[in-house]
Amino acid sequence: MVEKMAEDMTRDEKYGLRINRDRLLGRIEDLAAVGRLEAGGCQRIALSDADKAGRDLVSGWMRGAGLEVSVDEIGNIFGMRAGGGLCRDNGDGAPVMTGSHIDTVAEAGKLDGAYGVLAGLEVMETLNDAGLTTKRPLVLAAFTNEEGVRFQPDMMGSLVHAGGLSLEAALESVGEDGTRLGDELKRIHYDGEMKCGTLRPAAFVELHIEQGPVLEASGKVIGAVENLQGISWQKITIEGQANHAGTTPMELRRDAGYLAAGIVTFVRRLTGEVSGRQVATVGSMRFEPDVINVVPSRAELTVDLRNTEEAGLREAEARLEKFIEEAAAAENLHVSSRRLARFGPVEFDRGIVQVIEAAAERLGLATQRMASGAGHDAQMMARIAPAAMIFVPSLGGVSHNPAEETSDHHLEAGANVLLGTMLGLANGTGLS
Amino acid sequence: MVEKMAEDMTRDEKYGLRINRDRLLGRIEDLAAVGRLEAGGCQRIALSDADKAGRDLVSGWMRGAGLEVSVDEIGNIFGMRAGGGLCRDNGDGAPVMTGSHIDTVAEAGKLDGAYGVLAGLEVMETLNDAGLTTKRPLVLAAFTNEEGVRFQPDMMGSLVHAGGLSLEAALESVGEDGTRLGDELKRIHYDGEMKCGTLRPAAFVELHIEQGPVLEASGKVIGAVENLQGISWQKITIEGQANHAGTTPMELRRDAGYLAAGIVTFVRRLTGEVSGRQVATVGSMRFEPDVINVVPSRAELTVDLRNTEEAGLREAEARLEKFIEEAAAAENLHVSSRRLARFGPVEFDRGIVQVIEAAAERLGLATQRMASGAGHDAQMMARIAPAAMIFVPSLGGVSHNPAEETSDHHLEAGANVLLGTMLGLANGTGLS
Repeated sequence: MVEKMAEDMTRDEKYGLRINRDRLLGRIEDLAAVGRLEAGGCQRIALSDADKAGRDLVSGWMRGAGLEVSVDEIGNIFGMRAGGGLCRDNGDGAPVMTGSHIDTVAEAGKLDGAYGVLAGLEVMETLNDAGLTTKRPLVLAAFTNEEGVRFQPDMMGSLVHAGGLSLEAALESVGEDGTRLGDELKRIHYDGEMKCGTLRPAAFVELHIEQGPVLEASGKVIGAVENLQGISWQKITIEGQANHAGTTPMELRRDAGYLAAGIVTFVRRLTGEVSGRQVATVGSMRFEPDVINVVPSRAELTVDLRNTEEAGLREAEARLEKFIEEAAAAENLHVSSRRLARFGPVEFDRGIVQVIEAAAERLGLATQRMASGAGHDAQMMARIAPAAMIFVPSLGGVSHNPAEETSDHHLEAGANVLLGTMLGLANGTGLS
Repeated sequence: MVEKMAEDMTRDEKYGLRINRDRLLGRIEDLAAVGRLEAGGCQRIALSDADKAGRDLVSGWMRGAGLEVSVDEIGNIFGMRAGGGLCRDNGDGAPVMTGSHIDTVAEAGKLDGAYGVLAGLEVMETLNDAGLTTKRPLVLAAFTNEEGVRFQPDMMGSLVHAGGLSLEAALESVGEDGTRLGDELKRIHYDGEMKCGTLRPAAFVELHIEQGPVLEASGKVIGAVENLQGISWQKITIEGQANHAGTTPMELRRDAGYLAAGIVTFVRRLTGEVSGRQVATVGSMRFEPDVINVVPSRAELTVDLRNTEEAGLREAEARLEKFIEEAAAAENLHVSSRRLARFGPVEFDRGIVQVIEAAAERLGLATQRMASGAGHDAQMMARIAPAAMIFVPSLGGVSHNPAEETSDHHLEAGANVLLGTMLGLANGTGLS
């Protein structure tokens, strides 16, 4: 087949192109079969045997689609599709990249990460079928260890790619099971030769399920993700004194559970009082000795604060700290806090967000600008390139769970928006 | 030795009599050695081999002190000391009883229960040493399974004795380990022949460590326990929905942990707002899935409410129920509640409380009228006889713990007050 250059594409070829829904859905099922769990869902924890099997399957598909596959030193897989020429206004020949990850949490669904990678592959296949070459090269990435279940930190492959973590530090990461990441990478033969950070894209776009209920609640099909919440995670330990629940007058108690509960209600109130879009969650709570008739001597809880604005997030952190300090003094408790994670909010590229909106509009799909509440590889890529994300609705907002689901027509719609967005970006639109 | 009748006792013999501190403390240590734990403390769970060994030791001491030992059908041990004559104003010959229990919780201290039994034994020995006979007979009781750790309900032996639970039901109680109480009782040879409830005392007095910080805080040595708090225990289960902590807007959450925390702060507020002396404790709290970045789908917590007045306790229960109902509706949560225990408050006998105060006063000991926050055998005996309790200070308010401690001179003081109280009750004072 003689390939046609992008400049020769008709309007219908540019805008009438559609991905092959059955091929996309079929591959999602095929990949979900790798690491499938008997009770439902699947599990491909980073650098496990199942992850290796998933990597083999996906990189085989990449090669089958004619992509030139490279693996870098942290195990990121890149499939490159050559471009047809340099852009008039961007003479660097830098590629447009899409991608996500195929590793999963424990007892995962089939879409988180995998959908973005396989939709990117489907974009390549669709262009192959149409015999089209874009001006800029296209790259499909499957990043190593996005979930961070076994080895920390999460979003590791894209973080190393973007220069935010040294390769050496990443390789030395020790897993929950005592293994060393570098050894596991070698064991599964994904210790590649390409230097990390070699591919500097002109633009990066990631398609992902929303993992939240916003699109479902609004009835919109496509989320044009303009920013990503900053995250502040801490574990708070409160020490008081175990006392008999019946014999200890209220004024003589040092009840660790009382302050723990106060923190839960305080952070809920905070969400309405600081600037930006603030959410707050106490997901984990443990009392000791955890007995009906003993005043808790110790409480451990986690606080997850997220905000689209750094100023608001800082204000929330500061106000929580002050609340704890005052309450601990009033209740005669000792409190310590350990920071588990801290990422500032990320602003995505407005130009790419507009290209996404335009692509969705041409398809007649209702869009909504929104923030990502979860972390994604795109936030790391945003450090080195203009980046943005496309979301599709998650049924019931559920994810990280075998019940994770998105309707087939939404999966198809998202992949078509990705196609339109990549064509727009690779042929010169939206990159200023 | 020729025994002297109580009516012939001189004022000095009546009021100058003192228990033998070393014998009392020595026996407390000897009993603590039965079931001693390597890490400290001891453990004689009801009807275990250690409980049997403790029973054998104590009933041997009772016999050595000349008491006539009987075991009833539920395993309660009674040691009787004959009286010298019928009282002028109480011609029934009914005995004055003291006692407590020698079974323990897991990882217990040496005093809870054991102190009351061994101090009662010391009273008998002291009267023997002085060659004195009281008008009324004296009885020392060691009740079966006060702690209720293995077999429920707690305070079982005294409850059956008082007719509050049938012998048959008690014998059929199945333990945490799957054993049947009746079989275990037979196994350790404490399935006695005396009919339950045979001994109807004219008065019952129980000496016990406070298990709370009230006496230590006030600096008083003797608590004259005039009532015992009613107890309301429930387990509350809240069901919401697990959601991603980052992607779920606050207004779309169904956070089970939020209501659980609200209950903790609500019951604290309640304690200052209802009549009577109200305390409230949330000792156990569990979240599911208990993960930092997931909104809790489920929370389980216990609520322990206690009040010296039934009206106040009912008000607290009703207000908590209303709070939960309204909050569950507002947060779109499903709540269920299971009652684990409910005992009304117990008023002890004012006459006996005065006899206790008089005995302490003669010894120059500072007393305080107080409520018991914990359950005791005396509350069951109060169903069938005038009853009251004597408390001595617990260091740091600690109990149910190897660190449970009371200073030696307070242990001695409490036993002397018990001696004076029993003499007063058995020789006619304070029983109207």
